[in-house]
Amino acid sequence: MEHKTYNFGLIGLGVMGRNFILNVADNGFSAFGHDLDTEKVNALKEEGRHTGRVDASNDVHAFVNALCKPRKIMLLVPAGKIVDSVIEELVPILDKGDLIIDGGNSFFTDTDRREAYLKTKGIHFFGAGVSGGAEGARRGPSIMPGGNREAYKEVKPIFEAVAAKFKGEPCVAYLGPKSAGNYVKMVHNGIEYGLMQLTSEIYDVLKKAGDFDNSELHQTFRKWNEGRLQSFLVEITSEIVTRKDDKGEGFLVDMILDKAKQKGTGKWTSQNAMDLGIPVPSIDIAVSMREISALKEERVMADMLYSRQIPEPLEKKKLEKITEEALYFSFIVTYAQGLHQLADASREYGYELDLTVIAKIWRAGCIIRAALLEDIAQAYQNDAQLHNLLLAPVFVEKINATVDSARELVAYAAKSGIPVPGLAASLTYFDAYTSGNLPLNLIQAQRDYFGSHTYERTDLKGIFHTEWD
Amino acid sequence: MEHKTYNFGLIGLGVMGRNFILNVADNGFSAFGHDLDTEKVNALKEEGRHTGRVDASNDVHAFVNALCKPRKIMLLVPAGKIVDSVIEELVPILDKGDLIIDGGNSFFTDTDRREAYLKTKGIHFFGAGVSGGAEGARRGPSIMPGGNREAYKEVKPIFEAVAAKFKGEPCVAYLGPKSAGNYVKMVHNGIEYGLMQLTSEIYDVLKKAGDFDNSELHQTFRKWNEGRLQSFLVEITSEIVTRKDDKGEGFLVDMILDKAKQKGTGKWTSQNAMDLGIPVPSIDIAVSMREISALKEERVMADMLYSRQIPEPLEKKKLEKITEEALYFSFIVTYAQGLHQLADASREYGYELDLTVIAKIWRAGCIIRAALLEDIAQAYQNDAQLHNLLLAPVFVEKINATVDSARELVAYAAKSGIPVPGLAASLTYFDAYTSGNLPLNLIQAQRDYFGSHTYERTDLKGIFHTEWD
Repeated sequence: MEHKTYNFGLIGLGVMGRNFILNVADNGFSAFGHDLDTEKVNALKEEGRHTGRVDASNDVHAFVNALCKPRKIMLLVPAGKIVDSVIEELVPILDKGDLIIDGGNSFFTDTDRREAYLKTKGIHFFGAGVSGGAEGARRGPSIMPGGNREAYKEVKPIFEAVAAKFKGEPCVAYLGPKSAGNYVKMVHNGIEYGLMQLTSEIYDVLKKAGDFDNSELHQTFRKWNEGRLQSFLVEITSEIVTRKDDKGEGFLVDMILDKAKQKGTGKWTSQNAMDLGIPVPSIDIAVSMREISALKEERVMADMLYSRQIPEPLEKKKLEKITEEALYFSFIVTYAQGLHQLADASREYGYELDLTVIAKIWRAGCIIRAALLEDIAQAYQNDAQLHNLLLAPVFVEKINATVDSARELVAYAAKSGIPVPGLAASLTYFDAYTSGNLPLNLIQAQRDYFGSHTYERTDLKGIFHTEWD
Repeated sequence: MEHKTYNFGLIGLGVMGRNFILNVADNGFSAFGHDLDTEKVNALKEEGRHTGRVDASNDVHAFVNALCKPRKIMLLVPAGKIVDSVIEELVPILDKGDLIIDGGNSFFTDTDRREAYLKTKGIHFFGAGVSGGAEGARRGPSIMPGGNREAYKEVKPIFEAVAAKFKGEPCVAYLGPKSAGNYVKMVHNGIEYGLMQLTSEIYDVLKKAGDFDNSELHQTFRKWNEGRLQSFLVEITSEIVTRKDDKGEGFLVDMILDKAKQKGTGKWTSQNAMDLGIPVPSIDIAVSMREISALKEERVMADMLYSRQIPEPLEKKKLEKITEEALYFSFIVTYAQGLHQLADASREYGYELDLTVIAKIWRAGCIIRAALLEDIAQAYQNDAQLHNLLLAPVFVEKINATVDSARELVAYAAKSGIPVPGLAASLTYFDAYTSGNLPLNLIQAQRDYFGSHTYERTDLKGIFHTEWD
């Protein structure tokens, strides 16, 4: 055994955990893993042997004793009760000043509760969202840590070493106190839901309205990925569409069932946005679409009851231009909503988030990485008080250059019966958000009519009520 | 004092409570009110004197002692902690077998908690949503009670007497155990949010695309209210638009600020639908629009940054036809979503709801009363297992007759920049729900690509994973 004390400990040696440890070791730190499953322990030992800096044990005492103080222990276990039980196991055998870092998608109020509890024990607790999947964990994820600012210094060198790099800058930063890290990761995932839904709608439109075959889809998404739409999701879409099916003749994507699952972070984003009173319809609708997709049997029944018009086909070049612009437009609108939510959550929960920093650490490693994030970081750098991306001059320009295509596409799809709920929600959000006057004066009148809920006036200060009938 | 023991007790003598008591008295039952506010107590005494069946006191003991056993005590106080404190005050002075009925918009899990607690005291607890506003409480509301089926019999004669009548049938029925009543009322309000948003969008389109003045709006909504769109909300809209402003020259509605408030039931409906996994995008977007409306200052700023095209005006007659059909279409789709949620909640929470009964008690008295509810009740009567209204033959016909106008209107608004988030959400929900195949196969591929989340296939049973890169 070369190392008496290891720099970093990790509990939960699934593929994410194993990859994260190997990443730590690759970057010159020694790391010790723990899992109750001996097979996983042995797998890590085997995979890490060549580094000379990795060991593991299924015994939690051996694990804790192997770590140098203050101990830095990351959990990559499923969110929920398991996190609490691992914490309970650790508490009696840790020392004051040690750090526990929850790397999973824990609900942010759980993180607040755990942090407060561990504070009474003198132990630091971090919620640190990790995005990038298994590959990201191995080669460099985006890491979103929140917790005690001073204690973060202990783990900072390791996190900065293992994180993805964007032009040399590590995609990790201290984000704020308490559950700031989990919250930011939650909204990251909400945006991810939105972008995935939008991408799938554009893929659908290209097929139905332009008769694009998989090879043309591949070319189109690949080309887009070399331009302003450059992003992980556009990139993998270009690869996915021409992946051959090893169980059949054609392309794998065409054989995949259209029931999309979800693990809850998108739903949490929408639900919490409603608690904050921040509109995120492009995320809400992405959650709804996963739900609708699950109702496959009902959809098949309904499909037989309604005749669908065959859309007037569009010329491929023209369609490619319109869809590129509409996708870019709606990506912007979706990021705008998510960041709006973060800005408000920061005030509500005292996170003191720096949106420039957040945009920067999303530029590489994570699922929503995209060229757009450079512009977003710039917009917040220019104006830290920016209420909404749509108000930043650089985005006004981008939107003006693309919104007409979004209009044309939504209009075309509405007439043709191609479902584009994400694109429509993004466009109607934009139209509502940029309307100085909305017809909700009528809603206030209705509320006052039937419920005496009162209203304000445009010309006079005060609260008014009318006996309407 | 004519009555030694009163049939019915009510706590909370605001306008709703006072009106409800007078309604009870009008129907031949004696009723006793209680409020800590002596002014309110005296107001009720004064208003109820002529009936000879109404009394009130600011002393809770006098109140409880005035009621015949088993006591039937309705609370019309604001939802939240006040309900708990009133309960705590009553518990020591009530007898086993008495009933407490919460008539407010309490969150359904609060009702479950209170019911379980009061059961330990031998006291029955009902959550009973009451819809219809102050006027409804006075002349006949729709009442949605849930709780112990046997105990309901005690209050049934009073509720059936005071409730609104639809062709002689009272708009009240025992709905189910526990919080069934509050849950149904919550979803009622969610649907209400959706219908109000849709109505406000149509009002906006008529003004912007057809140059309808208030008098023409009045005529249009009034005419609609004589046809298949007949409903409380369409009716009051026709009245609202030509109400003269007593503080100025023109019409009042034009001077009302377009910031719409909300009290939470719409939000709860959306949030809980997400927990159930039931898509209700027409309700979600109505909640979002209230939020966007609140961002008045941002909207005014944004409006100045983006130029809005002047829409190509549409011929009034044609526009009136399109908007009528689009509104009818989207009303149907919104009810469909809410009822879908109720069907699922019924299974999830064990409410054993009868959707026919619910549609029937919504036909009069409540805010979402509409001619459509007759057809809805019929559809569920024909098929109690109906998954979604959109699958019922009678609604297939109605949708087919109107969907093209919804398409045309959404397309027109998308091109013109008139925000129609509710109409667009209703149309895209319809298009998605009636698509046997959705592009979410791509989303499953993406999820498997970056997160090894696995997927199903259309041709083979099982769970699959691919190493994509």
